[in-house]
Amino acid sequence: MEIQSVGLCLKPDQPQVAGTLRDLLKWLEARGIEGRLDRESARWLDREGVSRAELAASVDLIIVLGGDGSLLAVARKVGPRPVPILGVNLGTLGFLTEVTCDEVFTALEQILAGDFRTESRMRLEVCAERGGSELVRHLALNDVVLTKTALARMIDLDMHADGRTVTTYHSDGLIVSTPTGSTAYSLSAGGPILDPGLAAIVVTPICPHTLAQRPLVLPESSNIEIRVRSTGAAVQLTVDGQVGVELGEADLVRVRRSEHPVHLVVSPFRNYFEVLREKLRWGER
Amino acid sequence: MEIQSVGLCLKPDQPQVAGTLRDLLKWLEARGIEGRLDRESARWLDREGVSRAELAASVDLIIVLGGDGSLLAVARKVGPRPVPILGVNLGTLGFLTEVTCDEVFTALEQILAGDFRTESRMRLEVCAERGGSELVRHLALNDVVLTKTALARMIDLDMHADGRTVTTYHSDGLIVSTPTGSTAYSLSAGGPILDPGLAAIVVTPICPHTLAQRPLVLPESSNIEIRVRSTGAAVQLTVDGQVGVELGEADLVRVRRSEHPVHLVVSPFRNYFEVLREKLRWGER
Amino acid sequence: MEIQSVGLCLKPDQPQVAGTLRDLLKWLEARGIEGRLDRESARWLDREGVSRAELAASVDLIIVLGGDGSLLAVARKVGPRPVPILGVNLGTLGFLTEVTCDEVFTALEQILAGDFRTESRMRLEVCAERGGSELVRHLALNDVVLTKTALARMIDLDMHADGRTVTTYHSDGLIVSTPTGSTAYSLSAGGPILDPGLAAIVVTPICPHTLAQRPLVLPESSNIEIRVRSTGAAVQLTVDGQVGVELGEADLVRVRRSEHPVHLVVSPFRNYFEVLREKLRWGER
Amino acid sequence: MEIQSVGLCLKPDQPQVAGTLRDLLKWLEARGIEGRLDRESARWLDREGVSRAELAASVDLIIVLGGDGSLLAVARKVGPRPVPILGVNLGTLGFLTEVTCDEVFTALEQILAGDFRTESRMRLEVCAERGGSELVRHLALNDVVLTKTALARMIDLDMHADGRTVTTYHSDGLIVSTPTGSTAYSLSAGGPILDPGLAAIVVTPICPHTLAQRPLVLPESSNIEIRVRSTGAAVQLTVDGQVGVELGEADLVRVRRSEHPVHLVVSPFRNYFEVLREKLRWGER
Repeated sequence: MEIQSVGLCLKPDQPQVAGTLRDLLKWLEARGIEGRLDRESARWLDREGVSRAELAASVDLIIVLGGDGSLLAVARKVGPRPVPILGVNLGTLGFLTEVTCDEVFTALEQILAGDFRTESRMRLEVCAERGGSELVRHLALNDVVLTKTALARMIDLDMHADGRTVTTYHSDGLIVSTPTGSTAYSLSAGGPILDPGLAAIVVTPICPHTLAQRPLVLPESSNIEIRVRSTGAAVQLTVDGQVGVELGEADLVRVRRSEHPVHLVVSPFRNYFEVLREKLRWGER
Repeated sequence: MEIQSVGLCLKPDQPQVAGTLRDLLKWLEARGIEGRLDRESARWLDREGVSRAELAASVDLIIVLGGDGSLLAVARKVGPRPVPILGVNLGTLGFLTEVTCDEVFTALEQILAGDFRTESRMRLEVCAERGGSELVRHLALNDVVLTKTALARMIDLDMHADGRTVTTYHSDGLIVSTPTGSTAYSLSAGGPILDPGLAAIVVTPICPHTLAQRPLVLPESSNIEIRVRSTGAAVQLTVDGQVGVELGEADLVRVRRSEHPVHLVVSPFRNYFEVLREKLRWGER
Repeated sequence: MEIQSVGLCLKPDQPQVAGTLRDLLKWLEARGIEGRLDRESARWLDREGVSRAELAASVDLIIVLGGDGSLLAVARKVGPRPVPILGVNLGTLGFLTEVTCDEVFTALEQILAGDFRTESRMRLEVCAERGGSELVRHLALNDVVLTKTALARMIDLDMHADGRTVTTYHSDGLIVSTPTGSTAYSLSAGGPILDPGLAAIVVTPICPHTLAQRPLVLPESSNIEIRVRSTGAAVQLTVDGQVGVELGEADLVRVRRSEHPVHLVVSPFRNYFEVLREKLRWGER
Repeated sequence: MEIQSVGLCLKPDQPQVAGTLRDLLKWLEARGIEGRLDRESARWLDREGVSRAELAASVDLIIVLGGDGSLLAVARKVGPRPVPILGVNLGTLGFLTEVTCDEVFTALEQILAGDFRTESRMRLEVCAERGGSELVRHLALNDVVLTKTALARMIDLDMHADGRTVTTYHSDGLIVSTPTGSTAYSLSAGGPILDPGLAAIVVTPICPHTLAQRPLVLPESSNIEIRVRSTGAAVQLTVDGQVGVELGEADLVRVRRSEHPVHLVVSPFRNYFEVLREKLRWGER
C-alpha cells in the first residue's frame, strides 16, 4: 500500500513541538504526501484540523507526537479501519512510543519504502450499565480500572467470567488490562508482564484484603462482568487513565475484547524486550 | 488500682447491641461499679452520655463494643491519661477486639480481680500544614494515609525522615503505619507485619511506579515529613480510615510518634500470633 | 467412543487404597470393562501391571488415584495418543484431582454414558544440552524449574525467547510454567494465575536481585532458551518437582510447548474458579 | 581515641589490589601508624599476617578492601572489642562499603583527625542443635537462612518466638535478618527495608505456600527458635551467605541478638538513603 496521506496528532499544550510539526509537514510535502492535522496540532500552526476519528478513517498513516498518554488518547478514537500508527516520543522512551524524535525521519523513509511491520494490539471494549441502560461505552488500549473514590476505604466488586463466578474482590479496586497495558498500572499493582502479542486479558486487584487474590490471566475471548456491590461508596470507572464515570451500587461493567485492534508500527530500532529492559531498568538492581 | 467506674462505647447504628449493653450495666451495678456511657451508646438506652474524650479522662476502664473500627474511633479520642481499653468484638474476631461477646464477663471478672495485663500501643501524631499554618491535627492508632483522589492517576510525594531526603514516591499514595496498623491497609499494600510491641513506624507506598520502592521500617523516633509535590491533582489525607482532609500542592504532612500510647487490655484467651494465624488463615494455603 | 478398558494408576506407598482399587475393578468388571493396572498399583493386589506409558497407549480412560503429584507423574508418561485422564484425590482437593473418592462412581457413570467433557492441558517439552549434546528430555505438565543448589547464593541465567535476548536473571532460579502449573510453584514465587485454557507460558524468577524483574507471560508458541552463566555453582533442573538433573556452566535448557497436550476429564461437580476459591481460601482474608 | 594501628583486610583472589594495599601501608607509615595485615592480604605482599579475629582484638581501626561480602566475612570474626570498621569498595558501591577507593585517603584523614562517627550494627547469634547438642555457632551481620537443598521441593519449619508458636512455614526456606541484612536476600524474597539503626529482626519466608505468610518484624529482644519438621529432606543452614551446615529432621536453630554489635565507620560522603536510592535505582522506574 502506498502512503499518500499522513495524519499528525500532537500532545496538547506543547507549543515547542510546533517546529517539529512544521519540519514533518515540509518533509512530507517534498515527497508529495499530504499531511493532515488533528484539531490539537492544527491550533499551533493556525490551520484547520479534523477530529482524530476522522483522521483515522481517512489517512494512510498516523504519527502521534507525544508520550504514551498521547498515543492512548489517539488509539481510543481509532475505528475499525486498520490504519498504521507510529508513536514518536518527545521525551523519554515509552512503551508505545518507541521511536525518538531523532529517529523519526529515518523511520519515515523506511515506512514510505514499504519496509516496515505493524503489530496489532488488542483493545478492550468496556460498557457501563445502570438498571439495564448503557451509561458509557469506550475502547481501551491499556486498561479499564474501577477504584474507590477518596472517602471510601475499600469497595466490593463481584466478578464473573463467561457466566461463572470468579470471586468478590474486597479491595481498593480492580484493573482489567490488555497485554499492552500490563506494563502500566497493572504492573504497579503487582501484575505480570504480558507479551504484547499474547491473546489474553489480565485482571489485577489493587491492594486486595485477601492476600491470595493474585492477578488472573484470562483468555482474550472472556466475557468479564464486574458488578459494584458496595453500598453507599461511589466507585470510579477510568479508561486508559484518561476518561471515566462515577458508578454506584449494582451498576454493571462489561469488558471484552474489541474486534478492532490498533496497528502500531514496529520500531526498526529496538525490540520489545530492549524497551522493557530499559524502561524497567533491568540489568542491575 | 481498683476499678470503680467503667466507660462503655458502642459501635453506632447497632440497636441489637442494646441488650448486651443493658446486661453489662446490670452486671457492673451488681458489683458496685459505675457504668458510664458515651453519647452513641446512651442513645440506645435513652440515657445521658458524655463524649469519649471525657470518658477517657475519667473512668478506670473503657469497654468498646464493636469491631476494630469502633476501637480505632475511641482510641483517637483518648488523651494522655493511661486508661485501660478492652475491645469486645460483636462479630468476627478482630486484631484489636480479641475478646468475643461470650468471653466478656469472664474477662471482666479477671480484670476486676486485678488479674490482667495491658499492652501499650504506639499512636502517631499527624499534623497537616498549608503555608506554615496548621490545617488539622489528629492521633492515629493504625495509620495515616495519603492517596490520590479519584481523577488523578498518580501523585508525587516527597518524603524526608529526620531532615534527610528519603525519596519521591510516584504512586497511588503512601501509608504511614504504627505496628498496630501493619495488619490493616499496609498489609494489603505489600507491607510487613510488625509485632505490636515493636518501636517502629512502617512507610508503605501504594502501587509505586518504581517497583523497587519497598516498604520502609523506621525507628519510632523518626520525624517524617511528606510534601505534596503534584500540581493540580488533589490528595486525600485519611487518619485510621475514618477522618480526613483534602490537600493540595506544597501542603506538608508531619508524622511522628505521639508521646501518649493507648493501653489495650491483653486478651487472656489468645495471644497475638494466634489472632494472626486465624485472621490471615495461615496454616493452609 | 465407547470405553472398553480403563487404566488405573495409584500413588505409591498407599496400601490403604488397595480396598478402593478392588472396589473400582469389581465395579468396572460388572459393567464388562477391563481394568488394567500400572505396576505401582498392581503390587498392592499381587497382580501383573504394565508401565504407565503402555497404559496410556492402550486404554480408553486412565484413572489416577492420589494427589496432584500422582497425576503429574502419570501425565509426564502419556504419549501422543489423546487418552482421557480422571484425577481422583484421596485426601484434600487438588487443582488436578478435582473429583473426590466419594464422587468417583457417580463420575464414572457419567463418563461411561458418554456424558463428560475433557479439557486439553498444554505440556512443556524440555531438553537440556551440554556442548551440543542432549543430556535429558522430559515432558512437564506443571513446570520446568532451574534453581541454585544449596551452597550457591544466586545463579545467573541468560534467557532468550524466539532468538531475542530477554534478560539475565540474577536470582535463586527460574520457573517456566504451563497455565496448569501457574497455581503451583510459580504462584508461591509471585506469579499470576493463568486460566488453564490460556495459550501461554509464564516465566517467573525466584527471588530476583532486580526487583523489577516481574513474571513474564509469553505466547505458547515461544521458543525459550535458558543458558547457565554462573561459573562454578551447580544448577538443578527439575521437572514437575519430580525428576531432574544437575547442570553446570554453559549448559543450555530449551523449553517449548509440546505438540501433545494431556486430556483431563472435567469434574462435573465443580468448575475451575470454585476449586481456585477453595484451594486459595479466597472469600475471607 | 588516637589511632595508632590499623588492620587491613583484603578480599581474597584480588592480586590487582596489592598496589592499593602498598599505597595504604606507605600512607599510614608516613603518619607513624602501624599497618597490620590479615593473612589473606599479607600473602600478596609476601609478608606475615594474623587472623582477622586477632586483628579485631588488637588494632584501633580495621579497613576492609572489597565488597559487602568481604566486610561480612570480617564482621563475623569480630569479637566483643568495639573496633571501628571502614568498608572500602573496590568496584560498585555497596550497602556496607560506602566509601570508594578514590575517597579512602580523604576519609582516613578525617578518621585520624577524630572527625568521624561510627554506627553500631546489630549482629545475630545463631546456634544449631541436634538432640540437645550444639552443632555450630556463628555470628551473622546480615542473615541466617534455612533453605531446602536441591532435591526437596518444600520444607516445613516450625517457628517460635519467646516460647509462643508463630506458625509452621511450608516454603522454600526462611530468612532471619538483621536490619543491615534487610537489603540483601530478604529484600529479594519480598521483605521490607529496615533502617539500619532499628532495634528489630525481620523473618521473611522464601516462596511460602501460604501467600498470607508475609514477612514479620520482631523486637530485637526476641528469642527465635526454628525446628526442622520435614522428614527426609535435608535443610541447609547458611550464615551471611558464606558458611553453613546441613540439618535434618528435628534439628533446632536458635537465633537471637548478639550482645556485641559491630561498629561501622559512617561514610562522610553519603547517607543511608542516598546509598539506598542509588543501589535500588529509585528515582525512575
